[in-house]
Amino acid sequence: MIPYKILLNEHEMPKQWYNIQADLPNPLKPALNPQTHKPLTPDDLSAIFPMPLIMQEVSTERWIDIPEEILEIQKLWRPSSVHRAYNLEKVLGTPARIYYKNEGVSPAGSHKPNTAVAQAYYNKVSGIKRLATETGAGQWGSALSLACSSFGIECTVYMVKVSYHQKPYRRSLMEAWGANVIPSPSDQTNSGRAVLESNPESMGSLGLAISEAVEDAANREDTNYSLGSVLNHVLLHQTIIGLESKAQMEKVNEYPDVIIASCGGGSNFGGLAFPFLYDKIHGKDIQIIAVEPSACPTLTRGPCTYDYGDTAKLTPLVMMYTLGHDFEPPGIHAGGLRYHGESPLVSQLVKDKLVEARSVGQLGVFEAALTFTRSEGILPAPEAAHAIRTAIDIAQECKESGEEKTILFNLSGHGHFDLSAYDDYLAGKLDDYEYPEDAITRSLENLPKIDL
Amino acid sequence: MIPYKILLNEHEMPKQWYNIQADLPNPLKPALNPQTHKPLTPDDLSAIFPMPLIMQEVSTERWIDIPEEILEIQKLWRPSSVHRAYNLEKVLGTPARIYYKNEGVSPAGSHKPNTAVAQAYYNKVSGIKRLATETGAGQWGSALSLACSSFGIECTVYMVKVSYHQKPYRRSLMEAWGANVIPSPSDQTNSGRAVLESNPESMGSLGLAISEAVEDAANREDTNYSLGSVLNHVLLHQTIIGLESKAQMEKVNEYPDVIIASCGGGSNFGGLAFPFLYDKIHGKDIQIIAVEPSACPTLTRGPCTYDYGDTAKLTPLVMMYTLGHDFEPPGIHAGGLRYHGESPLVSQLVKDKLVEARSVGQLGVFEAALTFTRSEGILPAPEAAHAIRTAIDIAQECKESGEEKTILFNLSGHGHFDLSAYDDYLAGKLDDYEYPEDAITRSLENLPKIDL
Repeated sequence: MIPYKILLNEHEMPKQWYNIQADLPNPLKPALNPQTHKPLTPDDLSAIFPMPLIMQEVSTERWIDIPEEILEIQKLWRPSSVHRAYNLEKVLGTPARIYYKNEGVSPAGSHKPNTAVAQAYYNKVSGIKRLATETGAGQWGSALSLACSSFGIECTVYMVKVSYHQKPYRRSLMEAWGANVIPSPSDQTNSGRAVLESNPESMGSLGLAISEAVEDAANREDTNYSLGSVLNHVLLHQTIIGLESKAQMEKVNEYPDVIIASCGGGSNFGGLAFPFLYDKIHGKDIQIIAVEPSACPTLTRGPCTYDYGDTAKLTPLVMMYTLGHDFEPPGIHAGGLRYHGESPLVSQLVKDKLVEARSVGQLGVFEAALTFTRSEGILPAPEAAHAIRTAIDIAQECKESGEEKTILFNLSGHGHFDLSAYDDYLAGKLDDYEYPEDAITRSLENLPKIDL
Repeated sequence: MIPYKILLNEHEMPKQWYNIQADLPNPLKPALNPQTHKPLTPDDLSAIFPMPLIMQEVSTERWIDIPEEILEIQKLWRPSSVHRAYNLEKVLGTPARIYYKNEGVSPAGSHKPNTAVAQAYYNKVSGIKRLATETGAGQWGSALSLACSSFGIECTVYMVKVSYHQKPYRRSLMEAWGANVIPSPSDQTNSGRAVLESNPESMGSLGLAISEAVEDAANREDTNYSLGSVLNHVLLHQTIIGLESKAQMEKVNEYPDVIIASCGGGSNFGGLAFPFLYDKIHGKDIQIIAVEPSACPTLTRGPCTYDYGDTAKLTPLVMMYTLGHDFEPPGIHAGGLRYHGESPLVSQLVKDKLVEARSVGQLGVFEAALTFTRSEGILPAPEAAHAIRTAIDIAQECKESGEEKTILFNLSGHGHFDLSAYDDYLAGKLDDYEYPEDAITRSLENLPKIDL
């Protein structure tokens, strides 16, 4: 019998990351300098990123070695287990076989440390003493705090002020790892001070926190900036998820018919899906689904075009699915999926129809989350529950059709810091949210005009 | 090289619990009926416990089979890993080899589901439809909610009102598993109503919540009561921790010189230590240490005598180390270690000098917790950090003496729901607390007078 948990030993950990840029049917369009609209050069990025990460960002080598120092830290929780969801299958009465990769086992509670540890390492060996970053809900800030603590470098996190006050426990967790957490807007940067001058009561935004962190990093020789999703090197580091999962499925003589992951900036989706996309690109018949919230339907309702990564238009222009850089999604509880844009890599794969995008509403997501909690025991993060919703939908289709599909989804994190969201759901306080067409049309009017 | 995590496969899970009652040099003194002071009979307990658990409570069989149905649920997270704390060793610069068993991996975040699942199972097969229990900080209530959800029985948790309001996320977690959580004092029981009549603003106490849960269970045919520590059958179910640990240490050709676990009611201590105590009773030279807070120094400053398990004197009288049933420990942050009494089994072993008791102050505990968090990554529960404190102390003694001791401690839970305590520590708001001698003397004056 296939065990409940499919384990790998430490010596079975992947020794290389998989770089899907080597296999894209259509290569990525270059990122553009936000001022000149000319293709970005590695030098443009060197003020805030170390050279090894910049080289990974543009590399088309298929396999990139994982330094032993990174694996040594990740062995604290990796390899993570793949679970056969026997109890969920029973509750659903489905003939489908459901598997999930459990990335909630990291000390920070999500898949984010897979890249945080790698980024901290490359900065450390490049002589950097301090990293600056932003965090909204706190997942990424926690992951980078853990990573910096592991390599003995300082970590400063600009945390959106409304979260800083609403989620004090996420802040405490970062401080437990020794990070310096600053509510944004702050008086530490020009961007922060400008906002505070015009509105001393401002509760901040993710866009502003990015600007503060980038400015901090650009102004200090000893400091770099670190980003938790979207970029190619971030998704590269996350491929350890899919590489381990492939080895685990192979151990029980299974290969998934359907791969599912939630998709905000793209890092947990790319992490699981890219190693399987290699097979799909080379002819294998697999369905690969990126799930996003109907309240922030980037892949399902946005165009694929050049846009800024932030509201302040400071970041490079990248070719991606976008709802417009000044799109404001409602305050849904899956904070990690409230991004207007999308990873360029995932965008290209959706455009090329190798990846299917779906959107799901918040109510169905929480319903699925509780079905999962009460059958498999684990309380999922709302982000991860988007994948669970879709996995259950497909398992139920199998029940009707009698198909015995093998489903694999990414449980990207646990929900221990999301219980106020569950509270709201159980109290009937949540709504689904579908954007009216004109709201999206309006935000798309501000897209930059680029001569392609 | 010994791996960071020593894994067991599911088929290597123990198939029997170890019952230390078979090997005690001096058998337990009988529990007494609180009214008659005569030895308790199984019938006395049958109003609130199912017969299989009552039989386990008094059994002297060395090995008791674990029903397959219990293992099937526990496979969702068991076997838990034993970690070699390489990074902590490095930070301490100690020649000691430090290992820890990670019980924080259960969905409820602690070792408590090891017995919760067993208790829910035996109640289920005895025809019980509903379990009532109490919870203070929320660890036990969460574990029983998870267990009841697994077997499809109802769960009602009387939660001390002050915690119900101060720890809403623990409440939400129980509700996510479908439990009915009632703030205590409540209007659902005579004991609750009596307190509310005299003081409508009462914020409750653990003693009162126990009374409410016991009354609820005693008054309903379909309902039993469930307790998370102290009793023999509870510690029996927890021995899976030590049995797995022994197998894991054996895999890497190690045997601990020192075993350490925190001790409140005794369940995480007994769970890890009892299988090793079998060896010690049979001649093996091991140091086995139970660690308690200096603010609730039951084993280190109380006498071993008959006392009630609750403030209201409703429970049987048991022979144990106690600070007196109306002892009121200060509001230290390791809520799971604030019990006036101690498991009779652990008490007997301390009395017979097979187990050594130590007490540690809160400040040193949190200092050790952060050293652990910043080296091993995992944020421990304050309860578990008592064991970490002592493990670090011994590792530091080894540094001075040059001894290469092998240390194994129980990381009984994670601290994701304890971040306000870390906040207080980081803000310098915590104090150590040592009870003045006369305060303990005073509470011991009310011990019951029993003719032995």
